[in-house]
Amino acid sequence: MKSGSVVEFRFSETNVAVMVSERPMRVAIVGLGTVGSGVVKILVEQAERIRRRAGREIEITSVIVRDPTKARSVSHVDDLIDTSLEAIKADDVDVVCELIGGTTTAGDVVRQALLAGKHVVTANKALICEQGEELFQLAREKNKVICFEAAVAGGIPIIEAVTQSLAANQITSIEGILNGTSNYILTEMFDRNVSYDDAVVKAQKKGYAEADPAMDVDGTDAAQKLTILVQLAFGTKADLKSFPRQGIDSLDLADLRYADQLGFRIKLLAVAKLHGQSLELHTQPTLIRKQQPMADVYDAYNMIEIEGDAVGRTWFSGMGAGQMPTASAVVSDLIDLAVGRAQQTFPLLDLWSEREPLPILPAEQIERRYYLRFHAMDKPGTMAAITAILGRHQVSIASCIQYEAEGKSNSSFVPLVIMTHHCQEGQMRAADLELAECKAIGKNYLRLPIRE
Amino acid sequence: MKSGSVVEFRFSETNVAVMVSERPMRVAIVGLGTVGSGVVKILVEQAERIRRRAGREIEITSVIVRDPTKARSVSHVDDLIDTSLEAIKADDVDVVCELIGGTTTAGDVVRQALLAGKHVVTANKALICEQGEELFQLAREKNKVICFEAAVAGGIPIIEAVTQSLAANQITSIEGILNGTSNYILTEMFDRNVSYDDAVVKAQKKGYAEADPAMDVDGTDAAQKLTILVQLAFGTKADLKSFPRQGIDSLDLADLRYADQLGFRIKLLAVAKLHGQSLELHTQPTLIRKQQPMADVYDAYNMIEIEGDAVGRTWFSGMGAGQMPTASAVVSDLIDLAVGRAQQTFPLLDLWSEREPLPILPAEQIERRYYLRFHAMDKPGTMAAITAILGRHQVSIASCIQYEAEGKSNSSFVPLVIMTHHCQEGQMRAADLELAECKAIGKNYLRLPIRE
Repeated sequence: MKSGSVVEFRFSETNVAVMVSERPMRVAIVGLGTVGSGVVKILVEQAERIRRRAGREIEITSVIVRDPTKARSVSHVDDLIDTSLEAIKADDVDVVCELIGGTTTAGDVVRQALLAGKHVVTANKALICEQGEELFQLAREKNKVICFEAAVAGGIPIIEAVTQSLAANQITSIEGILNGTSNYILTEMFDRNVSYDDAVVKAQKKGYAEADPAMDVDGTDAAQKLTILVQLAFGTKADLKSFPRQGIDSLDLADLRYADQLGFRIKLLAVAKLHGQSLELHTQPTLIRKQQPMADVYDAYNMIEIEGDAVGRTWFSGMGAGQMPTASAVVSDLIDLAVGRAQQTFPLLDLWSEREPLPILPAEQIERRYYLRFHAMDKPGTMAAITAILGRHQVSIASCIQYEAEGKSNSSFVPLVIMTHHCQEGQMRAADLELAECKAIGKNYLRLPIRE
Repeated sequence: MKSGSVVEFRFSETNVAVMVSERPMRVAIVGLGTVGSGVVKILVEQAERIRRRAGREIEITSVIVRDPTKARSVSHVDDLIDTSLEAIKADDVDVVCELIGGTTTAGDVVRQALLAGKHVVTANKALICEQGEELFQLAREKNKVICFEAAVAGGIPIIEAVTQSLAANQITSIEGILNGTSNYILTEMFDRNVSYDDAVVKAQKKGYAEADPAMDVDGTDAAQKLTILVQLAFGTKADLKSFPRQGIDSLDLADLRYADQLGFRIKLLAVAKLHGQSLELHTQPTLIRKQQPMADVYDAYNMIEIEGDAVGRTWFSGMGAGQMPTASAVVSDLIDLAVGRAQQTFPLLDLWSEREPLPILPAEQIERRYYLRFHAMDKPGTMAAITAILGRHQVSIASCIQYEAEGKSNSSFVPLVIMTHHCQEGQMRAADLELAECKAIGKNYLRLPIRE
């Protein structure tokens, strides 16, 4: 054994692992942005607490940044600042904490860390989603571990729940509000009457949204997180293009109000449901009945509802974004590594394993109710034209409300909301094609699924 | 090493533990009641799933019952039925699963198992609460592990959350609906107009309530669970007598209705809150504002809200009682033992450790708002008498409603509800003494705290 990177365990006769080494676990932090600063803050300011819970010290050996002159919100690490990625390969590094975001440099950091024989902790869901297969394979070859609790739902320990706490169960459904930024924007708009653009700026100021919030608001971020959970729970590698994905950027404030009047809230909901031997997958703004726990999730909070065949339904909720909640998850991964739990869990994860994956249900076969909102021409025959198209595709109407034109809107168009009975996505897609050609309807027709 | 009880681990150069032994982990199940049958059902029917997640087989070596002739809901274990506790000491047993309940025989089972060099999994919160200190000490001496995820909040992985997932945090508050039976009874009464007695019978039929539900409805069960969480999160050993404890058996259906009219639900709430260097503790039916997540917990569901200094507020919810949810937690403990995680976690638990415990805030100093419900004599001067007593103890009234006498009640008394401003429990206790002497008030005066 190389003395530089070995933690000694003594196994007693009766197989309780007792750590006998007083050697600290040494961590290189790559990236000192929002999350990186939070991680440093906990490790430095709460060193004694962390030592007690990890069974040994967790020591920062280096903090690698691009621009060493930039003002930082953390102190005590000035001497450890480095600009060269070579520092992660140093003999005295046990774990590399990748907290720079993006996928290009971040991917290189993780690869180089694994090749140099370091464990990796990352909060980067885009990276896990895009390059996970290759990186996990490399980690296994190198007998190393990748921890990624912070990559999904920030401070909520959902990776641990799926891979450990609920291990007795076949998970049958995962439904979650997984993008804190979108949920924050929806809350600001509906509950506080803030415009979409102002809400985005506020989300960025609070550290929830990325500098470019496109991936948050177009549903990509939530879909990426869903694919990670799906891989863990069902062994299925779901390409982002293989299931319906829609963002909150398609919504008007008016839609939030119409839904409210009908007894619903609209949330960006990521769904994975087991149907026999295939998986229903989608990430879309979804109408959720107000009585359901998921409807009452506000601001940057996330919630995940998991159903297991033994445990029934469980809910996990907390901050899905923000500096300290995400740092809390990163540090818990570091503690798991220091204790040795992560090293035992990782080889058993179904993630990117050989096991036969469950196939994804073709989108056309997904069956549910829909909310349709039209800007319909305010003249005779419009309603007949729309309902005739729906009728031709066997889409049955459960309720219908035509609203008066709003003050500012073009008065020749009026909002029309139709709630359908159950039908298949395929029927709706076929109807959509005809609706797009229908001259009685304005351009921004919106269709959202309804959660029962 | 004794070959009979050793699991082989191979530690690679780079400290990832790889299990090389194909030897199953062998379990003796003690007790084949509701939970025991559920555990056997999962281990037998889902053997392949469990093997994949545990990295090896989990095999039942014996099932110990008192009455072998009793009809059982599980099959495939007839050959393993034994009536002698000696069976747990057999060489081929690695883990003893104590699922008989009670504390006398159960305590003996756990002690004998540890003395014989077996790990223990238990769902028995009363046992952990009463004899935990001694049993944990014995386990440490014998280099063995006690797992007890199922002892608190059934299927919700709250022990794992407190001891692992949130390890980066100083927990600052734990508030929970921890007794499924009480919550089920409250739901039946208020939402379905079922009488208290009928609701208790229904809870028993559903397998939520014990044969003797006294400990459920008088708050003992929830208080026991709270003390386990408090010990884990704060290192404080709280005697059940050291903090206010009150059950739902003190409530009338009318109180649930009055609270509803005022915008609250009443839930049996267990609370542990850090105030500087001391702990506020109580387990009482509590008025919770309807907008709060905790107010919307129905039936036998539990919810725990945990606040940490890094993660902020998190919520965990799921079934707190019932066969399969509890079995799910027991089996996840077995998987943790099979993987080896539990062996690494247990020695680091703060539970019953040497660490200086936080003191409990004297009950008199607990500060909050209160709901007071009187049956007041319907005659002049009553209100003056009551408010004068409150005034003498500096208890300020926030609102007050006198209801008309209900149909069946003695018409010389009418319900009177007072909501106070913030005051200390000590002030209220002093006022209670005078109120008890006040002839204008009927006997069953009720005082409940309000959660902000």
